Amino acid sequence: MTYRAQVEDIRFVFDHVAAFGQLRDTERYAETSEDLTDAVLEGMGKLCEEVIYPTQRNGDLTPAVLENGVVRSSPGFKDAFAAIAEGGWVAVSGPEAYGGMGLPISLTTAFNELMTSSNMALGLCPLLTQGQCEALEHHASEEIKSLYLPKLISGEWTGTMNLTEPGAGSDVGALTTRAEPNGDGTYAITGQKIFITWGDHDFGGNVCHLVLARLPDGVKGTKGISLFMVPKFIPDADGNLGPANDLKVVSLEHKMGIHGSPTAVMQFDGAKGWLVGEPHKGMAAMFTMMNNARLGVAAQGVGAAEGAYQKALDYAKERQQFGPIVNHADVRRMLLSMKADTFASRAIVMSCAVALDMAAATGAENWKARAALLTPIAKAFATDTGIDVAEQGVQVHGGMGFIEETGAAQFSRDVRITAIYEGTNGIQAMDLVGRKMMDGGEAANVLIDEIEADVEAARAAMPELAEPVWQACESLREAVEWLVSQTDMNTRFAGSVPFTRAFARVLGGYYHLKAAMAEGGEGARSKLARFYIRRLLPEHESLLTYAMAGADDLFAFSLDELEA
Amino acid sequence: MTYRAQVEDIRFVFDHVAAFGQLRDTERYAETSEDLTDAVLEGMGKLCEEVIYPTQRNGDLTPAVLENGVVRSSPGFKDAFAAIAEGGWVAVSGPEAYGGMGLPISLTTAFNELMTSSNMALGLCPLLTQGQCEALEHHASEEIKSLYLPKLISGEWTGTMNLTEPGAGSDVGALTTRAEPNGDGTYAITGQKIFITWGDHDFGGNVCHLVLARLPDGVKGTKGISLFMVPKFIPDADGNLGPANDLKVVSLEHKMGIHGSPTAVMQFDGAKGWLVGEPHKGMAAMFTMMNNARLGVAAQGVGAAEGAYQKALDYAKERQQFGPIVNHADVRRMLLSMKADTFASRAIVMSCAVALDMAAATGAENWKARAALLTPIAKAFATDTGIDVAEQGVQVHGGMGFIEETGAAQFSRDVRITAIYEGTNGIQAMDLVGRKMMDGGEAANVLIDEIEADVEAARAAMPELAEPVWQACESLREAVEWLVSQTDMNTRFAGSVPFTRAFARVLGGYYHLKAAMAEGGEGARSKLARFYIRRLLPEHESLLTYAMAGADDLFAFSLDELEA
Repeated sequence: MTYRAQVEDIRFVFDHVAAFGQLRDTERYAETSEDLTDAVLEGMGKLCEEVIYPTQRNGDLTPAVLENGVVRSSPGFKDAFAAIAEGGWVAVSGPEAYGGMGLPISLTTAFNELMTSSNMALGLCPLLTQGQCEALEHHASEEIKSLYLPKLISGEWTGTMNLTEPGAGSDVGALTTRAEPNGDGTYAITGQKIFITWGDHDFGGNVCHLVLARLPDGVKGTKGISLFMVPKFIPDADGNLGPANDLKVVSLEHKMGIHGSPTAVMQFDGAKGWLVGEPHKGMAAMFTMMNNARLGVAAQGVGAAEGAYQKALDYAKERQQFGPIVNHADVRRMLLSMKADTFASRAIVMSCAVALDMAAATGAENWKARAALLTPIAKAFATDTGIDVAEQGVQVHGGMGFIEETGAAQFSRDVRITAIYEGTNGIQAMDLVGRKMMDGGEAANVLIDEIEADVEAARAAMPELAEPVWQACESLREAVEWLVSQTDMNTRFAGSVPFTRAFARVLGGYYHLKAAMAEGGEGARSKLARFYIRRLLPEHESLLTYAMAGADDLFAFSLDELEA
Repeated sequence: MTYRAQVEDIRFVFDHVAAFGQLRDTERYAETSEDLTDAVLEGMGKLCEEVIYPTQRNGDLTPAVLENGVVRSSPGFKDAFAAIAEGGWVAVSGPEAYGGMGLPISLTTAFNELMTSSNMALGLCPLLTQGQCEALEHHASEEIKSLYLPKLISGEWTGTMNLTEPGAGSDVGALTTRAEPNGDGTYAITGQKIFITWGDHDFGGNVCHLVLARLPDGVKGTKGISLFMVPKFIPDADGNLGPANDLKVVSLEHKMGIHGSPTAVMQFDGAKGWLVGEPHKGMAAMFTMMNNARLGVAAQGVGAAEGAYQKALDYAKERQQFGPIVNHADVRRMLLSMKADTFASRAIVMSCAVALDMAAATGAENWKARAALLTPIAKAFATDTGIDVAEQGVQVHGGMGFIEETGAAQFSRDVRITAIYEGTNGIQAMDLVGRKMMDGGEAANVLIDEIEADVEAARAAMPELAEPVWQACESLREAVEWLVSQTDMNTRFAGSVPFTRAFARVLGGYYHLKAAMAEGGEGARSKLARFYIRRLLPEHESLLTYAMAGADDLFAFSLDELEA
């Protein structure tokens, strides 16, 4: 397979679907011209095609390993990461004051998508580092910022996120890691953290751990948690690496996929840490990092889908069974379903990214609300799509798809984690119907109104596409109304996953329609829109029925009955 | 996890859903009393719980390997297979004249399901052997039967199926393996076969390969293919093992799952073979084996779903995040969806098995048509369910699901192949809308009539369950009518996969309703029926819309447009 970085489609989504252009009307992003955007996308694409993609299989075949307490990364990863750093791609959106390009998150999102198509396991290293940069930018003291940000942005150092403990996953507030004041303004951090992505490596430089821990006076639960910077090597004020900190990698996990990404169990034994943000306000800072990471993970879903699609298409063109299998109706159906959903998820993710950028650039509440609404939808739908498309990619390969050497299975195994980490897709859905509907459904209704206005305008030109999307919007509006009228949260939660998917299905219909409109109703994008709207969009109906089934029947079962 | 063989549910499906009891009214199965059935199921369950299940992880962690040309199986597999053989379980339905129990295929199907929950990789060995027994029983000469069948049925020897070649997968007729007459009634077989499940092992005894090859006067395509018995060791007339045959295992595949099942590339270098059945009629014999195997693979889907469900439930009861996660609405939704679909697929598979048994026992055309109709639906839906339930099982485990030590990922990786082998699920769907609708939809309509009559009878007692099932039947009937009126086969094929799934969804609703009726409308089965009918059944509508979308839009894309 020859990987083709999907720069053209990203640019199309920017220009015609996600309204990226409006960023240029803001002061903050006034300089993100079309030429600059093109140059950045082209540069990312070239790097991913030529340098990153050739390392993809290495990570799967030669996983990262722990040797004498130090992680040895997969072959080629060190050089590939150096190329990322050299190009300035680690933190495209990092603040200019600290050496970053200060570009919109939308471009970081494009990078995360392209990185995932070409090597998801490696791409996690810059992804985590981006999140750390953003958390530090918004919450750390000037001293920490000026010491750490330039090194992280340049890729000399990398960052990790230490939340989870064996007994504290989705329930972060249950964590037991302690932070004791050393008396000199620093803290001694003690505890064990699990699932630490890129917890260590042999790229050189420093590994900077942002660790959630509880101060002696921290109350139980999330309100007693603080955030600390705990570097592997303690730097001096100029950023020169000093002595090793009291922390270590205990082991690496054996995972279903992303074997090239070392997932560490980290042990902190009174390691020296610096407080980031205010005491007991660690969750707020961590949420900055997590929201960033959610969008990044959403982009991973799109990237995995794109990579799996390209691989399956290449195979379908070559493989002869009664002629090339790409000419069989069912294989075409699979490929088009993969392509249509990849586009839909890319459009949703980029619309979310642009909303985040608009929120950052304008500070306007409506953009904040839009970004907040779209984030869980983007994360859940794009990652489900990544998994589903990679599965279909295996299926297109037939028996060869099950053979590891083919590489189709790797996409499927790698992307599987995206529905789990940064908040499972169940958690995303609860966030959507819970916190994101605390406004009585206003943000959702504003979006639905906007969509319907656009669809209304499209009705004359392409009624057979506009009408089903309009109807779907109306059904969605009714479901939103029903949801916000439910005061029992379990009633909402019981249907939250199908509701989230239905919302995404409708958004996908809208964005496909926009693509068809931009094209004038003729051509490949219009045909793909027709495929999506006729075949995939109708799923929203049964999903909404499912979403509104209530919780009573779920809790009607005793544990014994579940077991019978 | 403690695996609990789901004997009770199988018995319930036999008694109240799949009408297993009617077999007792036939001469052939008159002796399959309730007591005998119970004893057989209990015996299988005990073996699987106590002997087979403890070997499950071994296969994944210590795959079968090729050493000095011989396959070394995973730890514990040899003893576990010996226990299967000793219990007489290899070929439960094997003919009594050759040492078999002569029991219905339905009981073999139960065994295949239970084997898969407890160790899918090992279960493939008896599964393939069963298929070989059936092919020999119906097509081989008395000489071959009396030499091979007793050894295969007793488990002293095992059987394989050699169809696929690098250039001949779904298109079996493209195969190039040659069979040259030796002049003494035997043939010299030369060629390479791939994807040969349990192509070799170290269990002792013989490995009996049934190989498709072309005689010198065989025409191109499937009509020129003959079937040969090609044993690893050439036996004398008494079944004593003689010299090694001219065949070898070239390599074993590295697969996404079922690591404990050695998948061999087999090389035949003028190996001695015996014709099975008539010259050039090999496909007919192979179809006997494949139809058997399709039902067996369907049972694997059910077994994997059951195993994954039990594992997820155990975890959900133990894992504490804001209390045990089994009490969270979305986790319950997942578990109930897993349970409801596992039941639906078990009911469909067992109904298909009983139809096959009735066809064998009575020779009646209507039973043959019923079995033929249900086979592709059972294979496609049950394996899709196995994959989907195992995926949801991983999701219930959260981050632990992605860690291999947990074992949830193994179910997901193992079961993935079931949607591919024995004819991909796309091929099953084409079979359903193509060959199985050559009767103008008669078999489908007879089944729909039967269902509606039953549903009608249930309407008074439970209208809220009966009504949606009745409506769904009507929608299915319309889709069948539409399908059979399409003369362009691509139009049928374009929607064949969603049609097949919609058919299964409706059958699932019917079988859940039957379960609820049998229970009197109160209790766990009735609650599960309500869950399925309210939440999962509605999917059939969008599937049928998809099924009838036609092929034009699929073929409207040029290859360049697919690639763009």
